[in-house]
Amino acid sequence: MKLANLVGLRFKERPSDCVIDSHAFSVRGGYIKYVANGIYSLYPPMQRITAKIENIIREEMDAYDCQEVLFPVVLPGSLWQESGRYESVGEELLRFEDRTGTKMLLGMTHEEAAVQLVREYANSYTKYPFAIYQIQTKFRDEARPRAGMIRVREFTMKDAYSFHTSQEDLEKYYDKMANAYYRIFARAGIPDVISVKSDSGMIGGSVSHEYMLLTDAGEDSIVLCDECGYSANMEAADTIADNSGLAPSGELKKVHTPDCKTIEDVCNFLNSKVEESCKAVMYQKNMTDEYVVVFLRGDYEVNETKLCNYLGEKVHPAEVTVESGLCAGFCGPYNQHANATIIYDKTLEGIENLVAGANEVDYHYTGLNIKRDIGDVEYVDVSKIRSNDICPCCGRKSIRISRGIEVGNIFQLGTKYTKSMGMTYSDENGEEKTPIMGCYGIGVGRLAASVLEVKHDDFGPIWPISIAPWQVHLCLMRVDDAECKAAADKLYNDLLNLGVEVIYDDRDVRAGAMFADADLLGVPVRVVVGPKNLKNGQVELTTRDKSVSKLINVDTAVSEIQALIAELFNNINEKVIDRI
Amino acid sequence: MKLANLVGLRFKERPSDCVIDSHAFSVRGGYIKYVANGIYSLYPPMQRITAKIENIIREEMDAYDCQEVLFPVVLPGSLWQESGRYESVGEELLRFEDRTGTKMLLGMTHEEAAVQLVREYANSYTKYPFAIYQIQTKFRDEARPRAGMIRVREFTMKDAYSFHTSQEDLEKYYDKMANAYYRIFARAGIPDVISVKSDSGMIGGSVSHEYMLLTDAGEDSIVLCDECGYSANMEAADTIADNSGLAPSGELKKVHTPDCKTIEDVCNFLNSKVEESCKAVMYQKNMTDEYVVVFLRGDYEVNETKLCNYLGEKVHPAEVTVESGLCAGFCGPYNQHANATIIYDKTLEGIENLVAGANEVDYHYTGLNIKRDIGDVEYVDVSKIRSNDICPCCGRKSIRISRGIEVGNIFQLGTKYTKSMGMTYSDENGEEKTPIMGCYGIGVGRLAASVLEVKHDDFGPIWPISIAPWQVHLCLMRVDDAECKAAADKLYNDLLNLGVEVIYDDRDVRAGAMFADADLLGVPVRVVVGPKNLKNGQVELTTRDKSVSKLINVDTAVSEIQALIAELFNNINEKVIDRI
Repeated sequence: MKLANLVGLRFKERPSDCVIDSHAFSVRGGYIKYVANGIYSLYPPMQRITAKIENIIREEMDAYDCQEVLFPVVLPGSLWQESGRYESVGEELLRFEDRTGTKMLLGMTHEEAAVQLVREYANSYTKYPFAIYQIQTKFRDEARPRAGMIRVREFTMKDAYSFHTSQEDLEKYYDKMANAYYRIFARAGIPDVISVKSDSGMIGGSVSHEYMLLTDAGEDSIVLCDECGYSANMEAADTIADNSGLAPSGELKKVHTPDCKTIEDVCNFLNSKVEESCKAVMYQKNMTDEYVVVFLRGDYEVNETKLCNYLGEKVHPAEVTVESGLCAGFCGPYNQHANATIIYDKTLEGIENLVAGANEVDYHYTGLNIKRDIGDVEYVDVSKIRSNDICPCCGRKSIRISRGIEVGNIFQLGTKYTKSMGMTYSDENGEEKTPIMGCYGIGVGRLAASVLEVKHDDFGPIWPISIAPWQVHLCLMRVDDAECKAAADKLYNDLLNLGVEVIYDDRDVRAGAMFADADLLGVPVRVVVGPKNLKNGQVELTTRDKSVSKLINVDTAVSEIQALIAELFNNINEKVIDRI
Repeated sequence: MKLANLVGLRFKERPSDCVIDSHAFSVRGGYIKYVANGIYSLYPPMQRITAKIENIIREEMDAYDCQEVLFPVVLPGSLWQESGRYESVGEELLRFEDRTGTKMLLGMTHEEAAVQLVREYANSYTKYPFAIYQIQTKFRDEARPRAGMIRVREFTMKDAYSFHTSQEDLEKYYDKMANAYYRIFARAGIPDVISVKSDSGMIGGSVSHEYMLLTDAGEDSIVLCDECGYSANMEAADTIADNSGLAPSGELKKVHTPDCKTIEDVCNFLNSKVEESCKAVMYQKNMTDEYVVVFLRGDYEVNETKLCNYLGEKVHPAEVTVESGLCAGFCGPYNQHANATIIYDKTLEGIENLVAGANEVDYHYTGLNIKRDIGDVEYVDVSKIRSNDICPCCGRKSIRISRGIEVGNIFQLGTKYTKSMGMTYSDENGEEKTPIMGCYGIGVGRLAASVLEVKHDDFGPIWPISIAPWQVHLCLMRVDDAECKAAADKLYNDLLNLGVEVIYDDRDVRAGAMFADADLLGVPVRVVVGPKNLKNGQVELTTRDKSVSKLINVDTAVSEIQALIAELFNNINEKVIDRI
């Protein structure tokens, strides 16, 4: 199409509310339009990009016999009551009533709808395994939408659901989907996405993985080991503190520590090591306000997701009252009589000579040996892993924490939904069994924004050819030069006739404006027709990433352009490697 | 794909809640799944059908430079407040609040979103004309969803919006879209869709057309003239009563008509013609409860949409109280003193010798001549046109009323949205002007169901090849016959390799069950591999509509099947005629 007709504004100034580059270029390049908090319309270039991503996803899903279906955006509350999620999910689930007063909601994932669709169909083992997917609008009423299309409230998502008669069969399909995901990301131009073990959160289930694109703009922290290749998200990574080389057991003594309310104060005052101090972090359960005290090594922090997963419920930082029996600033495990759930974090395990609060203002214990002085306690892992910690996989002190964007996730759901929703099948012996599910998600818009986040320069996106809004950006430098115009028009029509996707800029604007627009549209192949080169029978052929820049003969331009497009596709396809 | 793996149940019994055939086959054939009132999930066959329809629509929109965008499903209430529709649209607009208490709604059409998307972009005449469209989920909280996918609450719709600087330019594009619509319906297999002039209703604007597929199962009445080709919907068709040959003016007399409360009673009692009687129909305005009395010829009915359009507001049937001053059963135009809006329908125009109520219990007037006895009144058209009425186009008494399903509509919106939402552009002279809009809708699911409604036999759908879920239905009659299986497997793979869409039934089931399923899936080309024919080196090639049924050589089967597919496409494409 002609750029002159393309709907959408492009401009130079970075909008002040755009923190990350992909957001800024999405707005500056005429890709998205803000409609409401976390809600955007898409202009034609972004619609073209997401359509291409959707087609890549379709091809990879279809290749593993995943059948495309469509679930509703608006779902009856009663369906989510069957699974229990109508009550259990927080405010991010948008609930409302229709004109008859019936409880409805906006689907944020579709496990319930998937079970409802196949519940009667899949009543015999002969129907298994099978998998279905949809590409559809979802709504999640995020408290803090941010970063343009990275964290929105309304989004298009591919969500797939597989159904199995055994855990082994689920795992086999899970591996296939894992492979499909690597292929999808590679085909979209980001082959370096890594898969990390993750916490399943609200969706449920046991094993799950997130696909992470490493970038400083990411909102997630990822735990990596460069030695053995281990990767996990923060919630899923086991923290292993190095408690070797610490002091042996000593005498338990109560000491006066006036005004020493922080670990730092105490260590300075007693000249003790932070590694041998016991920190107390206090919470209250959201439902009951019951107190929860976590004891952990002084130099570690609590990971609240790990804590909530262990407790099976949500918590908030404690408001410590006199009635609580807790002594803020001097809280410790010995002589602790408060009515609270006490949790010993694994980072304390093996330390025999601790400094800890004495539950009395201005007093601490030194020489605390939990095993000797308190007894056998259960240690659980609720702390945040840190850089240079011990890798839970290879045991080396090689942990690295990186930032990343989650571009997809896969879950082994087990029977959470099938059981609660009463889905069963008859097995070979006529016995009634509950099927096992997996689910697999990719946010289409977030994937587009993520590619942009890692594929751009200072002037705009550098779209991979596989998802670029067009393949060729054709610039006519002098619309008033009849010869130039004729040559460019001919190139345009010849390319279109061959099925090449061309955006043609034949506007009467300065070269600077023309190239700035071309940079913002980020089309991988650029062809410039100008009077100087055309006198020599040549046009300029470049790539957006500047790896190619040459003059080519105008008479063979079409075939050279086609060859370059094929080469760019090849470069991408070379990195699409099966890992199964 | 293999039929054995296809998700969805097919069964024989017609569900008792399905009134029309398309609904029954959609459920029986495993196309759709009820989720909530007017809300369905789509199984793979329907997803494949709607995807094909969407692609046809895309191609035809793109051909007229309509650019694909995407608007949100969830829109802020503030956007609809700008146009005034947040308040003016009834309960079919689903309004709710998000977690912050902000007013939101589910988009039922996207005029506001379209204006919001291009308001800043299109600030100069140089950007015009342009058009955008989306294919997206919509929600309309219908009071009475019915007929499966014909009238639902959630649906996928293509909605396009065009922007112009002059009425002439809008009309030019409107004609192009009208042509695109004919092409779309023809390509979807229903070339006989007709366009009828329609009332614009809630959307607004002046000129609009509905595309109607004539079928007795339709919920709309359509006015047709077989003599001149005139067509309109009931609201848009001018009623012309034949008042020729009625009695000349007589003497105005009040007569005693005891217990004659209906037109029939009065005509029987006075032995007068119903054509010379004046009927009164009483309403109240919804907002103010003010009375509205419509006088019309005794054998006509009020068309309430025409009435509301004339009044510019909604009405409901009147509750006649003593205070109203209206005399139910004896209400007439002469000596009428009630505090009400009085409307004279055009059907009364030219009648000089009327019987009408005397506004007094048990009394009527005879010989009423409105012009003589009341004066010059304004006659407006608020009555329902009837079969054999005078055609407003050719003047012959040739009106026919048919039933139809509305499969699309186009509107000349004018400046309703651009004006209220403050969208302007600078014209050639730098003057600020308001752009003129058109909008153009097609419901994707309804179109699929409509095709099914007119393309089926007693056993299932007969899908046109252009939108069929698959092109070829391959039946292996004896899976235990190695030779048959080898031949069918080879055909399957050969066809797949050529890009032919094949559903392959290699189940070990009886022939009856196999063919019943094939009928329900309605795939246009059927190939049956059985031992008897295969002994002679032959397989059976038929079409779902039975127009083709022959034995072909198994060795040349692939090319014969391809030729048949091409022929079926040709049959469709021959009827895709440009009307511009």
